Amino acid sequence: MRQQPRTLATTGSTSVVLDAIRAAGTISRVGIASVTGLTGATVSNVVRKLLDADLVIEIGRAESTGGKPRVLLELNPTARYAVGVHLDHGAITYAVTNLAGAPVARLARPGPGHADPTEVVDRMAKEIDMLVESIGIARERILGLGLVSPGPLSSRAGMHLTPPFMRSWEDFPLDTRLAEVSGLPVLLENDATAAAIGEYWAGGTQREENFAALYLGTGLGAGIVINGTAYRGASGNAGEIGHTSANIDGPVCWCGARGCFEALAGPAAVVAEAALDPRIVQAAGLDALGEGSPITQRFAAIARASRMGDAGARQLLERSARYVGVAAQSVANMLDVRMLVLTGSSFAAASHIYVPAIRETLASSFFARDNHAVEVRLSQSAETAPAIGAAALVLQAQFVPERSTSLAANVRKSGVVSELSTLSP
Amino acid sequence: MRQQPRTLATTGSTSVVLDAIRAAGTISRVGIASVTGLTGATVSNVVRKLLDADLVIEIGRAESTGGKPRVLLELNPTARYAVGVHLDHGAITYAVTNLAGAPVARLARPGPGHADPTEVVDRMAKEIDMLVESIGIARERILGLGLVSPGPLSSRAGMHLTPPFMRSWEDFPLDTRLAEVSGLPVLLENDATAAAIGEYWAGGTQREENFAALYLGTGLGAGIVINGTAYRGASGNAGEIGHTSANIDGPVCWCGARGCFEALAGPAAVVAEAALDPRIVQAAGLDALGEGSPITQRFAAIARASRMGDAGARQLLERSARYVGVAAQSVANMLDVRMLVLTGSSFAAASHIYVPAIRETLASSFFARDNHAVEVRLSQSAETAPAIGAAALVLQAQFVPERSTSLAANVRKSGVVSELSTLSP
Repeated sequence: MRQQPRTLATTGSTSVVLDAIRAAGTISRVGIASVTGLTGATVSNVVRKLLDADLVIEIGRAESTGGKPRVLLELNPTARYAVGVHLDHGAITYAVTNLAGAPVARLARPGPGHADPTEVVDRMAKEIDMLVESIGIARERILGLGLVSPGPLSSRAGMHLTPPFMRSWEDFPLDTRLAEVSGLPVLLENDATAAAIGEYWAGGTQREENFAALYLGTGLGAGIVINGTAYRGASGNAGEIGHTSANIDGPVCWCGARGCFEALAGPAAVVAEAALDPRIVQAAGLDALGEGSPITQRFAAIARASRMGDAGARQLLERSARYVGVAAQSVANMLDVRMLVLTGSSFAAASHIYVPAIRETLASSFFARDNHAVEVRLSQSAETAPAIGAAALVLQAQFVPERSTSLAANVRKSGVVSELSTLSP
Repeated sequence: MRQQPRTLATTGSTSVVLDAIRAAGTISRVGIASVTGLTGATVSNVVRKLLDADLVIEIGRAESTGGKPRVLLELNPTARYAVGVHLDHGAITYAVTNLAGAPVARLARPGPGHADPTEVVDRMAKEIDMLVESIGIARERILGLGLVSPGPLSSRAGMHLTPPFMRSWEDFPLDTRLAEVSGLPVLLENDATAAAIGEYWAGGTQREENFAALYLGTGLGAGIVINGTAYRGASGNAGEIGHTSANIDGPVCWCGARGCFEALAGPAAVVAEAALDPRIVQAAGLDALGEGSPITQRFAAIARASRMGDAGARQLLERSARYVGVAAQSVANMLDVRMLVLTGSSFAAASHIYVPAIRETLASSFFARDNHAVEVRLSQSAETAPAIGAAALVLQAQFVPERSTSLAANVRKSGVVSELSTLSP
């Protein structure tokens, strides 16, 4: 059922003009020429193509400053859409965003559990169809599908090394399989990077263009945004602070390294310790959930017990938060950022512990603290940021091939952009 | 004696054209128009100005492809120079590079010791004069001076928080004072970032445009290069892995944080531990050096003892190398780089321990190791890389304001670029 995508040969100048319009919000042809350095003739040509393709609309004229009033242009937000899918052990979350990156639909469904990957991917394709149909968008208006999964990403086959609870996904060709059954081009991204981009596009960073998102879902990771685009690194695995050693003599992690932050203090570690303390098991109602329940669900139950006043649950979370605070310090020191966004369902569940602990650690230990503070924000869309970000990455791959960081280069190398379909003008 | 620098209003297009020529090596006007997107008329205008200013030279004609043969352009490497100064406790190192970033002179002089900062800066200005005169370069051909010191950098006054052995420099207005007495515009940079840029421009990374340099001199830090330019962060303090906690219950570091890599395993920690063991003191001849001698000198003596077979010295270094290996893992995981360059005098001195230890840690623990390896290289110019890099940063600030990463933006914000003098055409 794979459709052959009709491709628009997105030349450098088309992307540059689209991105200039997106960045400005509202802009004239003269303004585009001025910010891009392209000639007036090139801008006029490209804009005509974009108007014909319905990607851009004329919204009126600027006030005259003496000469001929200038026609103002904006993106047509409903011209194209992108789908984001966040596959995590605990849940599969879907988002559809318009061309401006604003979410127009969301859907949360049960996680894969121990089902066969092939079946799960078939279900995902059906759920995507359902969501797209429910909001009445013509399928050919969908640029592509951003797919988010726990890392590390492999260029050849989705997840190569996988967390233990997703072991059956190891070496499963996730992206190519989903592209086959959905008929949409697929761009694979890791959870924390997608979450960071989701925060940026959803407005959670208030236009701060350089920041990191610390992501606590089932695992712990960081997403890095530089100049408004994702910094992905050589293989899309940048920001893997969760698998950096916090104790050189610590226990061996599933990733093979020793004393990782995630192994010492991630949600799975908190849940495992809680299981050893009958009082916490009772206070959090863990027995009722069962051992097969997702880590994020059990972790949230422990966080609720802590909020209700259970001292044991609180102590477990506080111990984890000391390590996560150091992970935050490490990210802030490496990148020298002014903002850190805390996102992911586990931060949302236990924000009463993690937010103050991380703020305190950065206030006392961020290396450049005499120069500037690091603002620590809790995401307003912690549950859906990765899915929104995955969709936004599809849009961004269209917009910003000429812009900084290695995102665009990597996406292009991966061959995804060249597959992305848009309506020919 | 401050000269009023004659400034060339470096417009965006001038920088873009200069950078296109630098990046290409040899290129025609048509080629420049093609890679920059500027119009042929703009390119011709800018090139004429650059030829008049002697910044660019015509080196011949391309083979005809039918039409009129195209004139080929190159940077004139001897048209301008930059000075780099690396101020460290153990030594003050100077480098002069030409417009292509190639070092044309180097000078190593004793470190500041406990001398008054004002006196040291006066000495630095004299030593710069001496070096520049010795190679017969007209002073007005010097674009500016890159000054490297241990961080954290402060935009208002050089080093704000300082390592203990440079406490008298705290709040000393290092950059403005050196600009005053030298008559040259000064760009301040931290040691690890400058070392990374120095490696890149000196060819040590063989054109790899994305890498990190781990720097072990008196302290431990990392410099980050993305798309061929320094990633500096919000305040020029990116890469401060040395002041990230490696043990949440460790001792308090001079920076105020707890259990920092530098406090646990940096050269000062190794030297302090060695001083407690009379056998190592004897094997390394530490008594002869004296307690006031620079950390780097005492550390090098311990490294020599280890190379000569002293087991105690070797054990101390191996313990340090385990931590430094984890610091390397942290940098590699955060940035997902394919290359890590080890630079700074202490890595050079004890490479027999650190190089294999870091390679081993990354081979077993780098998160994306199934995707790609991280090549670990020992710098070929470990002692002078920071000074060369400081000079290169002065050049780069001229060339790349439009390119990726926040370097250019930060440099511009700091007001340094606008001060950089070049001959008016």
